Amino acid sequence: MAVTMNALKLNGRPPSLLYHRPRLIIVRAFSALLSPPSKAVVYDQQGPPDAVTRVVELPPVEMKENDVCVRMLAAPINPSDINRIEGVYPVRPPVPAVGGYEGVGEVYSLGSAVKDLSLGDWVIPSPPSSGTWQTYVVKEQSVWHKVNKDSPVEYAATVTVNPLSALRMLEDFTTLNSGDSIVQNGATSIVGQCIIQLAKYRGIHSINIIRDRAGSDEAKEMLKQLGADEVFTEGQLEVKNVKGLLTNVPEPALGFNCVGGNFATLILKFLRQGGTMVTYGGMSKKPVTVSASSFIFKDLSLRGFWLQKWLTSDKAKECRHMIDYLLRLAKEGKLKYEMELVPFDNFHVALDKALGKLGSHPKQVLTF
Amino acid sequence: MAVTMNALKLNGRPPSLLYHRPRLIIVRAFSALLSPPSKAVVYDQQGPPDAVTRVVELPPVEMKENDVCVRMLAAPINPSDINRIEGVYPVRPPVPAVGGYEGVGEVYSLGSAVKDLSLGDWVIPSPPSSGTWQTYVVKEQSVWHKVNKDSPVEYAATVTVNPLSALRMLEDFTTLNSGDSIVQNGATSIVGQCIIQLAKYRGIHSINIIRDRAGSDEAKEMLKQLGADEVFTEGQLEVKNVKGLLTNVPEPALGFNCVGGNFATLILKFLRQGGTMVTYGGMSKKPVTVSASSFIFKDLSLRGFWLQKWLTSDKAKECRHMIDYLLRLAKEGKLKYEMELVPFDNFHVALDKALGKLGSHPKQVLTF
Repeated sequence: MAVTMNALKLNGRPPSLLYHRPRLIIVRAFSALLSPPSKAVVYDQQGPPDAVTRVVELPPVEMKENDVCVRMLAAPINPSDINRIEGVYPVRPPVPAVGGYEGVGEVYSLGSAVKDLSLGDWVIPSPPSSGTWQTYVVKEQSVWHKVNKDSPVEYAATVTVNPLSALRMLEDFTTLNSGDSIVQNGATSIVGQCIIQLAKYRGIHSINIIRDRAGSDEAKEMLKQLGADEVFTEGQLEVKNVKGLLTNVPEPALGFNCVGGNFATLILKFLRQGGTMVTYGGMSKKPVTVSASSFIFKDLSLRGFWLQKWLTSDKAKECRHMIDYLLRLAKEGKLKYEMELVPFDNFHVALDKALGKLGSHPKQVLTF
Repeated sequence: MAVTMNALKLNGRPPSLLYHRPRLIIVRAFSALLSPPSKAVVYDQQGPPDAVTRVVELPPVEMKENDVCVRMLAAPINPSDINRIEGVYPVRPPVPAVGGYEGVGEVYSLGSAVKDLSLGDWVIPSPPSSGTWQTYVVKEQSVWHKVNKDSPVEYAATVTVNPLSALRMLEDFTTLNSGDSIVQNGATSIVGQCIIQLAKYRGIHSINIIRDRAGSDEAKEMLKQLGADEVFTEGQLEVKNVKGLLTNVPEPALGFNCVGGNFATLILKFLRQGGTMVTYGGMSKKPVTVSASSFIFKDLSLRGFWLQKWLTSDKAKECRHMIDYLLRLAKEGKLKYEMELVPFDNFHVALDKALGKLGSHPKQVLTF
């Protein structure tokens, strides 16, 4: 009951439910803990995110004894969040739904049976789960993973999707040893930047392919600063033997494709005999095209990676160790990527930026 | 020396070398065993097989103590034999070379150190090796695998390439249990026919895709006689949901592609979540095209199979057990496919048929 009272006091006023349902008042006043009302990005149907989302105040939620109410601190807008709202993602939360899938918050109130968390702890939903674009999230205690409060908040908010994908993809397909190399396209994406840094940290070389565009020299420089060994634009790779361009980097055994089309073909050209290409995105919306001889004589394997599938597998129990590892690297400055922090009140501006309607912008991270 | 004399007598005349190099006659007469001269299909350079091959008589070969001379009985013309001569195969025997890669023969003479083979034994080169299109083949004893003389000669001649590929592909990529299913295109090929029968023998269903063409009804009937559960032409699969066409056959976990283009796409459509497609040929010369979502959300894996690579791997030691198994099935009538036996003297007619210059013909098997 101490927790309950504390929560109600923090909330500043008794939950409105108490007034609306007078017959329940006695039972609830002594047994039920309610969250504060929550300001949330809600969509009632799938569709264009800028059309179907609205910011509304959700009523308080009655908490069960194992529930934890978390006041969100930061949550990003990821492409997969947009795809979920658009309805083009294979797994769709039932509507109406609150947007967002990862983020960090601090424990605001605790159900009576919660033992391992305390008020003020920083926690992230791990595995990530729907509904982080709101001021207060109530979920069962097992959902929440406590993280060090000295973690940079924007990295704690974003660690469970992109950096975790990068780490898994380096682990799950081929055994890489120090001195080996990988090749990737879409290298300026956050996953791409994480792959460069995580590979470097293990002594693994990276060969990176980016688009030809204004600013590609700056992008090259940025990736090299992160530890990229080789960075090529698509245009530079219009040669008969792309491997001839490599200096002091061995032929890669593993490649990562998030673009498709010719960018995927370039990965296949770089791969060594028996190599593996992992597709985790299709930004160009063009398919991957492969000759029969690449399979038969070059013995290439083509696989896919989907974080959500991994998170529902047996291996997912490693998830929290990996998060701690990644946040430690972030704190030490060994894992970094550009983000733009945007107050939650400006959600629709951040969304427009994430949708690419306002030119090129870094990852948008909502702050609460 | 008994062996030597026997060999010389069987040959019917002393090797011509004895006459041409009189200074060596005494040494050779007592120490060297020579093969008979061999009538062989030779090519001096890579190129169109009908232009670069010629039938010549090769001089006798001096046999070492571990060598075995085999009088060939039968050897097929496989597409890979043609590719080797054309020079489009990744591994090219040094020229001049004798064509052919598999076949069966009987032991004609033995080097003095050969213990495990006797004159008249039936043997096949296992792993297969170059130069079977000739009347006498001399190779080291470890090359030869003795097979039962009650094996059908045309199956003994052809077992180490196509049926072995079919068996390996059913074994090496996915664990299949009775009641599971596979899907394949190019189902009328010999590998395709073997897959149907070997799958059936293990209680595994097969879904088969063939071309729309005159005679496709007969082809369907033929494949069903072999044990095919489902046979579709490409045209029949121009529907939104190909899996809706399956009755009493589960979604396949494994697919085999030897065609490419739309025929490969159809395999991918049939495969179940997490399935694997193995490419072992590219008859249409069209590439395999795959969407990003097939990799990411459907979690498909795409692999390749090349018998020659398998034969140089650790697993190749299983090769001879597998040959015995396959020949037993062939003898029992559980593994069959159409072949046309052609006397070696008609090699160039058989070659033209194998090249498709004379319409559609069964597998050409040279007999000696």
